[in-house]
Amino acid sequence: MLIRRYQIGGPAMTIAPASQLDAADPLAAFRSRFVAADDPSVVAYLDGNSLGRPLAVTAERLAGFVAGPWGRGLIRSWDEAWMAEPLTVGDRLAEVILGAAPGQVTVADSTSVLLYKLMRAGIGARAGRSEVVIDRDNFPTDRFIMEGVAAECGLVVRYLSAPHDTGVRPADVAAVVGERTALVVLSHVAYRSGFIADMAAITRAVHDAGALMLWDLCHSAGVVPVELDACDVDLATGCTYKYLNGGPGSPAFCYVATRRQEELSQPIWGWMGASDPFAMGPEYRPAQGMRKFISGTPPVLAMQPLKDMVELIAEAGLTAVRQKSVALTEHAIALADEVLAPLGAVLASPRDAAERGSHITVDHPRFAAVTAALWKGGVIPDFRPPDGIRIGLSPLSTSFAELERGVEAIARELRDHAGPH
Amino acid sequence: MLIRRYQIGGPAMTIAPASQLDAADPLAAFRSRFVAADDPSVVAYLDGNSLGRPLAVTAERLAGFVAGPWGRGLIRSWDEAWMAEPLTVGDRLAEVILGAAPGQVTVADSTSVLLYKLMRAGIGARAGRSEVVIDRDNFPTDRFIMEGVAAECGLVVRYLSAPHDTGVRPADVAAVVGERTALVVLSHVAYRSGFIADMAAITRAVHDAGALMLWDLCHSAGVVPVELDACDVDLATGCTYKYLNGGPGSPAFCYVATRRQEELSQPIWGWMGASDPFAMGPEYRPAQGMRKFISGTPPVLAMQPLKDMVELIAEAGLTAVRQKSVALTEHAIALADEVLAPLGAVLASPRDAAERGSHITVDHPRFAAVTAALWKGGVIPDFRPPDGIRIGLSPLSTSFAELERGVEAIARELRDHAGPH
Repeated sequence: MLIRRYQIGGPAMTIAPASQLDAADPLAAFRSRFVAADDPSVVAYLDGNSLGRPLAVTAERLAGFVAGPWGRGLIRSWDEAWMAEPLTVGDRLAEVILGAAPGQVTVADSTSVLLYKLMRAGIGARAGRSEVVIDRDNFPTDRFIMEGVAAECGLVVRYLSAPHDTGVRPADVAAVVGERTALVVLSHVAYRSGFIADMAAITRAVHDAGALMLWDLCHSAGVVPVELDACDVDLATGCTYKYLNGGPGSPAFCYVATRRQEELSQPIWGWMGASDPFAMGPEYRPAQGMRKFISGTPPVLAMQPLKDMVELIAEAGLTAVRQKSVALTEHAIALADEVLAPLGAVLASPRDAAERGSHITVDHPRFAAVTAALWKGGVIPDFRPPDGIRIGLSPLSTSFAELERGVEAIARELRDHAGPH
Repeated sequence: MLIRRYQIGGPAMTIAPASQLDAADPLAAFRSRFVAADDPSVVAYLDGNSLGRPLAVTAERLAGFVAGPWGRGLIRSWDEAWMAEPLTVGDRLAEVILGAAPGQVTVADSTSVLLYKLMRAGIGARAGRSEVVIDRDNFPTDRFIMEGVAAECGLVVRYLSAPHDTGVRPADVAAVVGERTALVVLSHVAYRSGFIADMAAITRAVHDAGALMLWDLCHSAGVVPVELDACDVDLATGCTYKYLNGGPGSPAFCYVATRRQEELSQPIWGWMGASDPFAMGPEYRPAQGMRKFISGTPPVLAMQPLKDMVELIAEAGLTAVRQKSVALTEHAIALADEVLAPLGAVLASPRDAAERGSHITVDHPRFAAVTAALWKGGVIPDFRPPDGIRIGLSPLSTSFAELERGVEAIARELRDHAGPH
């Protein structure tokens, strides 16, 4: 056992052993609901925030879908269920995950495509304003899409650099928004540091400037409670393959507040967003409500797996999921302090759990090579440039023992990569 | 047996009985490869051109995907296979289905989103030209998306109305394109009539005007041989849930000719279309080649089913598939002439097989009500406004007997709806 104790600016403390934390974990049994969670060739899966593990029921769900609604229902299933499904699944996401009343969420497209549609919609509703705001550390697709949208709409992108530490704070936003600002786009949980932005206060600052606020929820949906309605958010989007375990490339979701739906319009006028898709009329008339934010035929097969994960989260309770998430990231930081810091690694995530999502990032100049070696040995964190190992902790499928094995392996590889010892 | 003989402008002919046609069909055995193809509750499935039946291997394919590449490979599968998969599946589509050399096709998004991206790309490459051209009878999503793109780009939409009969001919196109034309968008096979446009001649007429040509292949991909390279096509897109049996809302594909890839750029600058998605650099630089037409994370799970159908078509041979398709539509027209025409129904599809895809539409004022009644009895064609029953014939899963049962049921319902007899 590598890990014995840790110390944070005070007396030496003993880290509770992972076995004890797992034994006391009220959610521990959920781990068995996932495919191959105890596959011995995977020593530690610490990347559930890039691709969540499949649920065991997912294979049955898909096989049943093929045999039933698709294979026997055939085209009739569109009438019977599928036409409504992007919105009914959206409503369930709204209720369980997003803190939103019905009629404001749909499943559709990819996060990138939805970012594009929502940015265009938001900017369109603030015609005459000349700027959009995003932070330099936002996930590439958010920045890239905004760069493209700004170029085509003739707007200037103002980039926020968070001066404090690991994330954007309300004062940073208040300092740059103004009467020229059309739209602000930020991630609720930062993809690298895990910093949780203050959704309520930032949204308020943006509204005070008369602009609209679009939140990217990719790294919070399903793990950090979100209160879109209570925070008066205008627009939000996020993916479903991380903590919602929808599978590789599963469709994204988007939220448009009811009070904004009438004034906003999106640019990709597909038939499924038309008021009567089967009238096949001469011109596009947008549907009422959330349906108008849909473009093409909804990805019904691809939205099956995430439905079961939403129900699993509902069963566990999002509050309990968040509690375990905090315990896991606390334990991860304690382990990092104990065995990685002495080897020169530096925590790049908030130490205050209230400001931290469900992953932490630790930086070390040799982590690119270390990650490659770890993967070969079945220890699977993510690498984030320039030199971060990101440890993602998906509370319903990650155990404390798995986390501990993973951090120990990182320490071992760091020492091995330092040369003979 | 309702059907005895038919007559087309000549001597009375005997319609070969379906049983005889099925017995002589070299592709008949393929039908057993589909889920529930002999489900007795489905008397006739004549809508495989809206939603193809699942293959029996699809359930296994998906279960294996969950257990293996997703459940055990986890995030590593992105490196090992999935990053390349949109392009490798695209290359296979190119080879088997589209008559295209490698490096020109990717799977992504929905048809609507790809239409948007390709229209914007094409218009961008013809800056200064003020018009786009589409036909009034094109599928709604094509017309609606073009309407939206034209509005945002400040272009005028010129609508073609085919004066001849059921589709757009080269002379119709040549008459409207000119130095103002940026882009022409047409369907290769018309969604309602089934008319096959002359891809080579129309593309030539468009090029003669210096414009670009975008073909919608939704109703031809997998059933009508397409020669994109030989026809010198610039851009094409199509869905995979019809004759490619990818399942409800399966992702679409797009083609951009190699010679156009450098000059064209698409507007949704997602990270997966960037030159190095994992560099997470400060600004978007588009990838080389087809990858730049990708935006968000590719829908890997959702593109699994179509792979097996592409291989099934390769096994059968697209030429043989087309031969059976022609035989099926010939038989459908013969049956319609025999039993539907006497009841007042009118064929709305080409009689010349060379001009006809794999579905026919028959019009009758009472067909909306007839279709609803047919569905209740397990006879499933599609209804297309204002008064068409569309009979879609998916050669590898549709039998002549099924077609005959379907047409007989239409006739029966027509008589029943006419009142007591």
